Amino acid sequence: MTLNIGVIGTGAIGRDHIRRLSFALSGARVVAVNDINAEQARDVVTQLGIEAEVYASGQELIEAGNVQAVLVTSWGPSHEAFVLAAIAAGKPVFCEKPLAVTAEGCRRIVDAEIAAGRRLVQVGFMRPFDQGYRALKTVIDSGEIGAPLMLHCAHRNPHVSEAYGTGMAITDTLIHELDVLRWLIDDDYVSAQVVFPRATRHTHAQLRDPQIVLLETAKGVRIDVEVFVNCKYGYDIQCEVVGEEGIARLPEPSSVQLRSAARLSTGILMDWKDRFIDAYDVELQAFIKGVTDGQLTGPSAWNGYAAAVAGDACNLAQVSGRIEPIELPSRPAFYN
Amino acid sequence: MTLNIGVIGTGAIGRDHIRRLSFALSGARVVAVNDINAEQARDVVTQLGIEAEVYASGQELIEAGNVQAVLVTSWGPSHEAFVLAAIAAGKPVFCEKPLAVTAEGCRRIVDAEIAAGRRLVQVGFMRPFDQGYRALKTVIDSGEIGAPLMLHCAHRNPHVSEAYGTGMAITDTLIHELDVLRWLIDDDYVSAQVVFPRATRHTHAQLRDPQIVLLETAKGVRIDVEVFVNCKYGYDIQCEVVGEEGIARLPEPSSVQLRSAARLSTGILMDWKDRFIDAYDVELQAFIKGVTDGQLTGPSAWNGYAAAVAGDACNLAQVSGRIEPIELPSRPAFYN
Amino acid sequence: MTLNIGVIGTGAIGRDHIRRLSFALSGARVVAVNDINAEQARDVVTQLGIEAEVYASGQELIEAGNVQAVLVTSWGPSHEAFVLAAIAAGKPVFCEKPLAVTAEGCRRIVDAEIAAGRRLVQVGFMRPFDQGYRALKTVIDSGEIGAPLMLHCAHRNPHVSEAYGTGMAITDTLIHELDVLRWLIDDDYVSAQVVFPRATRHTHAQLRDPQIVLLETAKGVRIDVEVFVNCKYGYDIQCEVVGEEGIARLPEPSSVQLRSAARLSTGILMDWKDRFIDAYDVELQAFIKGVTDGQLTGPSAWNGYAAAVAGDACNLAQVSGRIEPIELPSRPAFYN
Amino acid sequence: MTLNIGVIGTGAIGRDHIRRLSFALSGARVVAVNDINAEQARDVVTQLGIEAEVYASGQELIEAGNVQAVLVTSWGPSHEAFVLAAIAAGKPVFCEKPLAVTAEGCRRIVDAEIAAGRRLVQVGFMRPFDQGYRALKTVIDSGEIGAPLMLHCAHRNPHVSEAYGTGMAITDTLIHELDVLRWLIDDDYVSAQVVFPRATRHTHAQLRDPQIVLLETAKGVRIDVEVFVNCKYGYDIQCEVVGEEGIARLPEPSSVQLRSAARLSTGILMDWKDRFIDAYDVELQAFIKGVTDGQLTGPSAWNGYAAAVAGDACNLAQVSGRIEPIELPSRPAFYN
Repeated sequence: MTLNIGVIGTGAIGRDHIRRLSFALSGARVVAVNDINAEQARDVVTQLGIEAEVYASGQELIEAGNVQAVLVTSWGPSHEAFVLAAIAAGKPVFCEKPLAVTAEGCRRIVDAEIAAGRRLVQVGFMRPFDQGYRALKTVIDSGEIGAPLMLHCAHRNPHVSEAYGTGMAITDTLIHELDVLRWLIDDDYVSAQVVFPRATRHTHAQLRDPQIVLLETAKGVRIDVEVFVNCKYGYDIQCEVVGEEGIARLPEPSSVQLRSAARLSTGILMDWKDRFIDAYDVELQAFIKGVTDGQLTGPSAWNGYAAAVAGDACNLAQVSGRIEPIELPSRPAFYN
Repeated sequence: MTLNIGVIGTGAIGRDHIRRLSFALSGARVVAVNDINAEQARDVVTQLGIEAEVYASGQELIEAGNVQAVLVTSWGPSHEAFVLAAIAAGKPVFCEKPLAVTAEGCRRIVDAEIAAGRRLVQVGFMRPFDQGYRALKTVIDSGEIGAPLMLHCAHRNPHVSEAYGTGMAITDTLIHELDVLRWLIDDDYVSAQVVFPRATRHTHAQLRDPQIVLLETAKGVRIDVEVFVNCKYGYDIQCEVVGEEGIARLPEPSSVQLRSAARLSTGILMDWKDRFIDAYDVELQAFIKGVTDGQLTGPSAWNGYAAAVAGDACNLAQVSGRIEPIELPSRPAFYN
Repeated sequence: MTLNIGVIGTGAIGRDHIRRLSFALSGARVVAVNDINAEQARDVVTQLGIEAEVYASGQELIEAGNVQAVLVTSWGPSHEAFVLAAIAAGKPVFCEKPLAVTAEGCRRIVDAEIAAGRRLVQVGFMRPFDQGYRALKTVIDSGEIGAPLMLHCAHRNPHVSEAYGTGMAITDTLIHELDVLRWLIDDDYVSAQVVFPRATRHTHAQLRDPQIVLLETAKGVRIDVEVFVNCKYGYDIQCEVVGEEGIARLPEPSSVQLRSAARLSTGILMDWKDRFIDAYDVELQAFIKGVTDGQLTGPSAWNGYAAAVAGDACNLAQVSGRIEPIELPSRPAFYN
Repeated sequence: MTLNIGVIGTGAIGRDHIRRLSFALSGARVVAVNDINAEQARDVVTQLGIEAEVYASGQELIEAGNVQAVLVTSWGPSHEAFVLAAIAAGKPVFCEKPLAVTAEGCRRIVDAEIAAGRRLVQVGFMRPFDQGYRALKTVIDSGEIGAPLMLHCAHRNPHVSEAYGTGMAITDTLIHELDVLRWLIDDDYVSAQVVFPRATRHTHAQLRDPQIVLLETAKGVRIDVEVFVNCKYGYDIQCEVVGEEGIARLPEPSSVQLRSAARLSTGILMDWKDRFIDAYDVELQAFIKGVTDGQLTGPSAWNGYAAAVAGDACNLAQVSGRIEPIELPSRPAFYN
């Protein structure tokens, strides 16, 4: 049995997901595509050599009889409407982050999904599907390091463009930690503080870089995340969990060890696209399996909402310089 | 387009490949199975919930009209006949190691394939598909460490059963190095020597363990491989390439780093099945793609033959205590 | 030429310094000792087999004609008076931390030394003499990682006694970071904040453990130091300096790498006394050389004062929960 | 009590030892020096500012009334005569390697020392005093990795001069492993084989580089040592001991870890003088203590002889291409 998928948005990531579904994963095929740029959509179909119909609008694609599930990889501000439409059509939908550009938008999706009576939404947070994070969670859940007390994290990029402003350090970058850390330690945030170290000379006028975000959770865990997006040396994701009995650290990506030129070294990736490349396969395969089995298990609309609420507080803390509360309503039973 | 595959042999590895083809990889389905134990074959079909016909013999499966390609995962001594039959039927065949239990048997397959006029055989050596070995080869081929001069390798198992004798250290264990090292440094072996260190107290009467195999290549590279199959502590594969400008080392498998109980540590795998688990997916996906594209690129029958010739010399050197020549005929142009 | 040294305080650390001066270092001998427990002082002389006179009081020892330099390793609250007496006597003095139990006491020593017109005091902060910290400073000073922007540090002990209260996390533990980090990045602190994560179940009623101390420097560098003194797994000192071009990390202590029992591991020390054991030799040898050359170069009274001022602010921040200013007067030219 | 030492040979290493004895170690002073170049000897005394008499000959220095112990750091071929003279004078002598330039010469020293009735000779093999090797030996002796079965070693130099020929790979380089490995696993060699890999393009006409030396011990342990003296990338000493229960590896020298320019790296030393720099201090301090205590414990004349016998066999094996026996007489009870 093969799942028929429609893809809205055929930019870089959409195209890559279409390739995945068509040539790398099991159990699905892309039968419909749409893009605001119709010619680009047609080109993707031609270049990849797949048999998919090009739809004039996302709405039509969602309603198409042979489309059983939807992927939303269009421009961020369009996500909410497409996801709501898919829910209205009763079709499972995988939506790239952000689920919506505001916490309120995410909340509307949560409410719609609850009203629909079954889980239909998976958000494209890929880190919970990464082998390294999963191994780290396995260690934590085993009790081997005891109860987590502190997390020391870093999210570093070699550089960003002039279009990337101070607030995007939260909405584009930290958002991944905001999702994956909740999942990792099974906890919720209660406050956020942001401090700004001396700025690197490699940043630009619109961006205070680096930043350190300090989070507190309901269980009292303290999290610090260094966000440093012009760090020059690599795309580097660090996560260290300090527990009562010991410390566990996210594995470094596998790399050939070199002895050369007076250094013993391994490589650090420079491109974020390579860091979680396997996780994209795993998250989409999980979506296919979830739809086929009738039970989605990946990041839910609630997770998208929770990350958005925390992100709003972080953005506020950037401006206020104060410790800002993070007030997430209690989780609906629907999401347990 | 989906490739229809028939699988001969539904033991542990056969069953695992069927699962892979059905639920993890793209572009193929299992339509036929056979096992010397017909009931087991039926059980596998039922348990995995696939739609595949159970054939009374491997030969019938090979000849079945809807079978487009064959997987041979049966008992080793039966491989040669099934592979020859597939070649005779003009059908691509993926054969688990050994390609044949003698070098002569491998040679017959090579001759048959050449006579058939196109590559039809892929041997189930998975290490060239392993991300770590591929990264190592990329470094070597880049010239970064200069011309390879020496390789220091180890192949260690925590323990083996009483059925594993001294000769199997070559045919079951070293055989993987014999294949992958030729590929890694693009070279051929010219001699082999085996030395026996003091035996571990954890071995048994029929097995001299550990052993060190010393190989020399046509280009003068010296290779030492420690084969130690009752090493207790883990399944551990090491490969260090010493070049004129530096040294490159096979990556350790990714693992969470722990600080606990006065140790800073990462895990070592205990089960060989976990070590190259991703490579099995990649090698089979490559076979599917190779068949579909009309051009197999994985380990060829010639590679199977070359490994067998080297293995024979190593087995002889175990007994003689001398440096034994490895005489591989020159590679037929067919395999360039 | 051999320097004659008098040692006040023959407890564990005093005794160890006497052994060092007598049998491990070059250029000095212990000619006088004193302890509030005279019998213990006599025992140390006898047991180590040295020729040293036992004095009835520290003051007499300081004034003794053949004593050319003084080591103060007595009870903390007695340090200030002995150091001031040594300055008054015009004799160089090495004083174990704390220089004085209050910042005001340290300031009195600073003033006395300035009035004396030459450097006479070295404080027993040993980390600037540690090979690892020195290597780290060399990297920073080389400009290889660019200007420091953030420091991520940890000071972890396996456990502490019931006598160790929340405030001692600053005065006994963090005090080493407060000294060494100023030296490492050549900067001064301007504010401190303390946050308290969920407490470990291994702490006791009088101790909030762990703590995270957040420091800001005059140049805008942000420092976080995790102080965790019941961490169970080891005595572990971490220091990572994030610069504009890259990151440098304090070396782990050297340790045999083991492959055993499914783990690849190195050891972590359990006893703080082993961590900087070589640095004690180096700091005392530097004191001997400094006295002999007429120019002390190790941690000065000003450094002791600066650490005490910062420590007071941290202690205040523990209680207030606020960001507290650290107001260090400008450095007297005398200490440049 | 201060030991009066006379030093024969004031070249680079002699001068460095004089500095050590005078300014870094405890319990000794240099009272006499001699060099074949008298002016150089005088310069060293002047430059270091020590009070030592310059003797016209090594023999006179040895016989001088105030010289209690002798250091021989002169040209290799002169060692034997000076050591024999020191034994004849009943004075303890520390001799840099080689103890003598032939095994027979070493044997004459052994015989003379036995005839003298007490240990008077310490050979300047410093590796047994290296912290890393000592930690490795502690692990082995603890039984943690079980009985040693194999050792995989490497001795690599960035480059050597044109004066360094194939045989010197044994007598100048491997000689350190020949000494330290016997000590490390408490065993004796019984055979040696040398194989020559493809030569590096960075070697010169008189030197086959690299070489691999294969040793077998009395207990059946197999040792391989890669000797590669134009390896370009660093001075790198590796030693891995494979035991019945696990594997222990010599620590890498401590180094700052860097994240920069897409690499995670630590430094590798380039200069051999830095690799065991601390061990020189420790070996000489042990000599001083041994003489003072009346019991030398460092590498004995027997160790020097055993290394020389093994070295001769390795040199023979370089030429013969065969497995050569190493026939060491049984150890005199005197050396137990």
